[in-house]
Amino acid sequence: MEKELVFGHQNPDTDAIGTAIAFSYLQNKLGYNTEAVALGEPNDETAYALKKFGFEAPRVIKTASNEVDGVMLVDHNEPQQSVSDIDKVKVTHVVDHHRIMNFNTADPLYYRAEPKGCTSTIVWKMFNENEVEIPKNIAGLMLSAIISDTLLLKSPTSTEEDKEAIEALAKIADVDYKEYGLTMLKAGTNIADKSEEDLIDLDAKSFELNGNNVRVAQINVVDLPEAMERKEAFLKAMETASKENNYDMFMFLITNILDSDSEALVVGSDENKAIFEKAFDKKLNDSEVKLPGVVSRKKQVVPPLTDAFEG
Amino acid sequence: MEKELVFGHQNPDTDAIGTAIAFSYLQNKLGYNTEAVALGEPNDETAYALKKFGFEAPRVIKTASNEVDGVMLVDHNEPQQSVSDIDKVKVTHVVDHHRIMNFNTADPLYYRAEPKGCTSTIVWKMFNENEVEIPKNIAGLMLSAIISDTLLLKSPTSTEEDKEAIEALAKIADVDYKEYGLTMLKAGTNIADKSEEDLIDLDAKSFELNGNNVRVAQINVVDLPEAMERKEAFLKAMETASKENNYDMFMFLITNILDSDSEALVVGSDENKAIFEKAFDKKLNDSEVKLPGVVSRKKQVVPPLTDAFEG
Repeated sequence: MEKELVFGHQNPDTDAIGTAIAFSYLQNKLGYNTEAVALGEPNDETAYALKKFGFEAPRVIKTASNEVDGVMLVDHNEPQQSVSDIDKVKVTHVVDHHRIMNFNTADPLYYRAEPKGCTSTIVWKMFNENEVEIPKNIAGLMLSAIISDTLLLKSPTSTEEDKEAIEALAKIADVDYKEYGLTMLKAGTNIADKSEEDLIDLDAKSFELNGNNVRVAQINVVDLPEAMERKEAFLKAMETASKENNYDMFMFLITNILDSDSEALVVGSDENKAIFEKAFDKKLNDSEVKLPGVVSRKKQVVPPLTDAFEG
Repeated sequence: MEKELVFGHQNPDTDAIGTAIAFSYLQNKLGYNTEAVALGEPNDETAYALKKFGFEAPRVIKTASNEVDGVMLVDHNEPQQSVSDIDKVKVTHVVDHHRIMNFNTADPLYYRAEPKGCTSTIVWKMFNENEVEIPKNIAGLMLSAIISDTLLLKSPTSTEEDKEAIEALAKIADVDYKEYGLTMLKAGTNIADKSEEDLIDLDAKSFELNGNNVRVAQINVVDLPEAMERKEAFLKAMETASKENNYDMFMFLITNILDSDSEALVVGSDENKAIFEKAFDKKLNDSEVKLPGVVSRKKQVVPPLTDAFEG
């Protein structure tokens, strides 16, 4: 069987990296020949989870077509979030929990999407459907991915199946998921030793919304006022990044994982800022707005932005 | 639970109609509230299968948004093959076995695609995964769909799982699938009492290939020379349909289901005919070409056409 690469999106998070490792393991058990790789280095939270369950960080690739003809995507499908030469390889499998956008193929493929809180929840179901046993360390990694994406089941993206998966995987991994989960999430909130340029790119995704290149970045913190002290420097970094990358709008969501509230900073033209205000029915105050209860880019940010840009 | 409609593509075949009925049944068992409908009347083959297993033809709809907010698609995803107001409803589920093209959503959804011979094979797996018993008449319909799409497992789109599904479903439906299958396929080959206009629209799909509106129609026969006697009338009907619907190319595939060979008729500009010739590496002779062994539009026609139009 010809080798294929398995990877998550750019600026990888624990779902992108953890689920790539888990899905690659599953596919190899089913007879494929795959290697899990990543489109970037693990963030602090992911590094914590990898270390906890005894994994090395996956090899980072810049392009895929120099090594393989076929790839399998996890946790994303939009081409601009994928490997730079995605148009030069054949996507044979996708497992994802996002909207589908600008994803076109010449041939039929395996595509499995469900509106669950985390891709690992879907992969957990696939392990069960295929009656493949989940090793203890893989279970730990999938557990970490679900905790990360659902903010320990507090995100509105969480579903009953995410909870079932967390409980089943915690049992296999032999950890207290609440205690481990909070420690892991906190490991990802250390922003003090990172530059503003790094922080606005740590967990950032680009979306094409009605012809506009919209960047939405998010960081998790445990102290919002402390993060907002760096507001001017964040805005400056966002302005620079927008110029360099032709973003039409840049939204930076700073989420307090303890109380599930966010503040957003927004950079862009007056016209696009007005679209933002329409999307959330809130006025920006000096490029800033409080978004109480908003923690999910996918469920609470991208759909209203999509509607507003298309409206 | 709010009602949703389940349907297959325009110009429905036995997979589109049979799988809509089967998937609607499964989803209702899983707690959804759905009705299987169709985007057109059943063809002769499908009508034979429906009658054999005691079903009425599903209600034909022209639009969906006047009755429901959400829909579930089977056996297609491309908007131009779907209901006319597909952009006005939310697609919540897709089960399909085709390439993905121009299918975009604002929200995450359930999407299940596998490169199998028939959508019913995937739905058969979903019944098993969800441990829902398949009623005898539904099994018969799914069996009919798989026989239709795989030409009794002779199409190159057939997979090992299609065979497993056929055998399992034939057991539940209590029929000899080879004997029933040939009778059912032959029921769909009666072209004598149909006009050329009807025949070129019976099983026809539109594809957007690099900005070109390409129509590919197919009929099954048991006597190719008899069908080719109507060549001039077919070409005239294809020319008229192309003008009325702005098709950039119209390809009509006439397939002998007994020996798995086809002849194709092609209408279009000289430039597009040249692209067609490049796609199949064959010269058209008076708008006609023999395509031995070609029986699958999805696997043997659309991919080479896509490559040729893009290349």
